[in-house]
Amino acid sequence: MENTTLNVQGMTCGHCEAAVTSALKELNGVSDVKVHLSEGKVDVSFDSSKVSIDQMKEAIEDQGYDVVA
Amino acid sequence: MENTTLNVQGMTCGHCEAAVTSALKELNGVSDVKVHLSEGKVDVSFDSSKVSIDQMKEAIEDQGYDVVA
Repeated sequence: MENTTLNVQGMTCGHCEAAVTSALKELNGVSDVKVHLSEGKVDVSFDSSKVSIDQMKEAIEDQGYDVVA
Repeated sequence: MENTTLNVQGMTCGHCEAAVTSALKELNGVSDVKVHLSEGKVDVSFDSSKVSIDQMKEAIEDQGYDVVA
């Protein structure tokens, strides 16, 4: 299991937090997600043999948020 | 049919707009809802014989937002 922190722009409220959390948790290989709304950060625990960071970024962007480096 | 504008605090994103809109539209007697997100205002067209402004305020507050005078 690995951990990463993604920088996500545009999350403003609990709905946004829920949308990002569930989009990530739907990915096979993602085991835990913690959104830090005020900081625009998302901590993810994942199995890198099953899911890539690019797939996580795409899942977040599909919800309408930008992932920055 | 009557029209009113409610001042709603705490709406920050499209999810908030959708939550408030659908909560109001579920009320019998509400025919149209238009959220102005950046202004914190919600225009409602309604039949005052079927629904009261207090019922609308309660529906919005149930979604977690404050309605101010």
